[in-house]
Amino acid sequence: KAIFRQIYLTLKAELLEDPAFDFTDDARQWIDKMLDYNVPGGKLNRGISVIDSYKLLKGTELSDNEVFLACVLGWCIEWLQAYFLVLDDIMDNSHTRRGQLCWFRVEKVGLIAANDGIILRNHISRILKRHFREKPYYVDLLDLFNEVEFQTASGQMLDLITTHEGEQDLSKYTMPVYRRIVQYKTAYYSFYLPVACALLMSGENLDNFVDVKNILVAMGTYFQVQDDYLDCFGDPEVIGKIGTDIEDFKCSWLVVQALELGNESQKKILTENYGKSDPACVAKVKSIYKDLDLQNVFFEYERLSYEQLISSIEAQPSKPLQDVLKSFLHKIYKRQK
Amino acid sequence: KAIFRQIYLTLKAELLEDPAFDFTDDARQWIDKMLDYNVPGGKLNRGISVIDSYKLLKGTELSDNEVFLACVLGWCIEWLQAYFLVLDDIMDNSHTRRGQLCWFRVEKVGLIAANDGIILRNHISRILKRHFREKPYYVDLLDLFNEVEFQTASGQMLDLITTHEGEQDLSKYTMPVYRRIVQYKTAYYSFYLPVACALLMSGENLDNFVDVKNILVAMGTYFQVQDDYLDCFGDPEVIGKIGTDIEDFKCSWLVVQALELGNESQKKILTENYGKSDPACVAKVKSIYKDLDLQNVFFEYERLSYEQLISSIEAQPSKPLQDVLKSFLHKIYKRQK
Ligand SMILES: [Mg+2]
Ligand SMILES: [Mg+2]
Ligand SMILES: [Mg+2]
Ligand SMILES: [Mg+2]
Ligand SMILES: [Mg+2]
Ligand SMILES: [Mg+2]
Repeated sequence: KAIFRQIYLTLKAELLEDPAFDFTDDARQWIDKMLDYNVPGGKLNRGISVIDSYKLLKGTELSDNEVFLACVLGWCIEWLQAYFLVLDDIMDNSHTRRGQLCWFRVEKVGLIAANDGIILRNHISRILKRHFREKPYYVDLLDLFNEVEFQTASGQMLDLITTHEGEQDLSKYTMPVYRRIVQYKTAYYSFYLPVACALLMSGENLDNFVDVKNILVAMGTYFQVQDDYLDCFGDPEVIGKIGTDIEDFKCSWLVVQALELGNESQKKILTENYGKSDPACVAKVKSIYKDLDLQNVFFEYERLSYEQLISSIEAQPSKPLQDVLKSFLHKIYKRQK
Repeated sequence: KAIFRQIYLTLKAELLEDPAFDFTDDARQWIDKMLDYNVPGGKLNRGISVIDSYKLLKGTELSDNEVFLACVLGWCIEWLQAYFLVLDDIMDNSHTRRGQLCWFRVEKVGLIAANDGIILRNHISRILKRHFREKPYYVDLLDLFNEVEFQTASGQMLDLITTHEGEQDLSKYTMPVYRRIVQYKTAYYSFYLPVACALLMSGENLDNFVDVKNILVAMGTYFQVQDDYLDCFGDPEVIGKIGTDIEDFKCSWLVVQALELGNESQKKILTENYGKSDPACVAKVKSIYKDLDLQNVFFEYERLSYEQLISSIEAQPSKPLQDVLKSFLHKIYKRQK
């Protein structure tokens, strides 16, 4: 929404005048451009969900200041995301992101992008210090962002050493490996972090919300499975891009399922054709997905996940928290994009 | 010393069993190897100076637990250094570091090193949380490491956009630019951070030590000027490497001085020959340094810096703090390596 976007400009202006660094004009311009290029261009779902969650938890209308602070935390999550994406694109040697060239491929940027990623991370600390230093939950906020960052970086490591190390080897792609990567690399920061921020703002102690964390991590996993499903079976017109997980040798839920369900001859075909850019190879992989009826395997997985999530949510004692969790779930259930 | 080194092993063992991440065997081995390769191989000056400073501040003998905690903070600084160096080597496309191949050049590592750098940074948060969470100064410790990291990353950015961006352009190398890069990129984390850690352990509020910070940052700047001087005029046998700042187009104190002191024809020769690997070009640059008598310019700078530092130190009200600052100064004054 417009208020949320507006606050990006406030935060950027503060960062460009941060007294902890003696900016040159060049440095200020660099950061300005780097932020505009990398931070606000996403869907902003993660950031905005902090405000939505906090509203539901609080029950009553939020004051202007409460809205502002929730937006600030929302932007911190968007900054965190930008930091991970800038570095991930370097490590994956990607070409485009959010419909534009990856930052490190922009003229004159190159590997300076790695330091820009670091700067993005550091901006979060600067923003938190400026706006939350006097709050009783400041130290918990720092611990939360630190822990979630550690988990995401650990998930990223797992992904990198499983996917990139040595030659392509499909035998490493098993369900436990898949779940672990997704849980750490995506679920904590995308699903748990926004709700945890809202809980801290509400004065809660996160130690009392381990179940909530587990539910959100499960939801994040389900979300990534959808992402993998849509990459192959979604409508490119709707999702806005053409999937290339097969060509990219991605550890996708689909290939993991195919390896689990396929017979020896199907696994052999997968091994020979997965991760090749040749359309004939991609077609062979897709025809195995079809033979194994992975679309219906996915629908069944989706149905089961939904059921389990709803029943865990309804086992939660707090009604407002149930509403938060259900609102997350209904935003993603049966999504087409 | 031996106790300090021993504690590295304790910290590593804790990190490899961190319950915040569900390690695979591969992941544990990767981190183990990555830490051994990058963390303990330096001179450990920064880390050990935390313990020395804390001893001087405290006055009395330290308990075993106090020694342990000071060593832990010392190691956090070494971890921070490792993090910066791993990423700096990627961005500078360097070949060797501390007498071995840069981490990103090691077989099977490549750009995974960028994420390893992130992991190193995150280990600091994990270590601080484990060992200092209950201390009254925990939040100040987090703020300190965050602020110093931000300043270092900002200095690195300044260095990158001044040195790497576009073609080689010596006109950007001025004294204010030089000082700013050095202050942020090196001085805060190498000189201020160890003392600030010791002050926090002693129960002090860092807001009351702005002068101390300024003295240490000035000392860090002086230290880098020495480094630049020794790169050209030091004895390679003593410093253990052959300097290549001229070849590498480094923003060195020497070239900045030469540009300030040289006449138009000398500046022209510098512009034409600086940053070339051809030994004839390097020789021309060195002969200008000689014509401008930069060795004596440096000796005069060194004398003046020492005088100013001593007088600022002696203006400090606290005797133990004076001792800390003098011990730093005497470790580096007139160093040959
Ligand atoms: Mg990627
Ligand atoms: Mg990746
Ligand atoms: Mg995808
Ligand atoms: Mg370097
Ligand atoms: Mg560098
Ligand atoms: Mg040097």
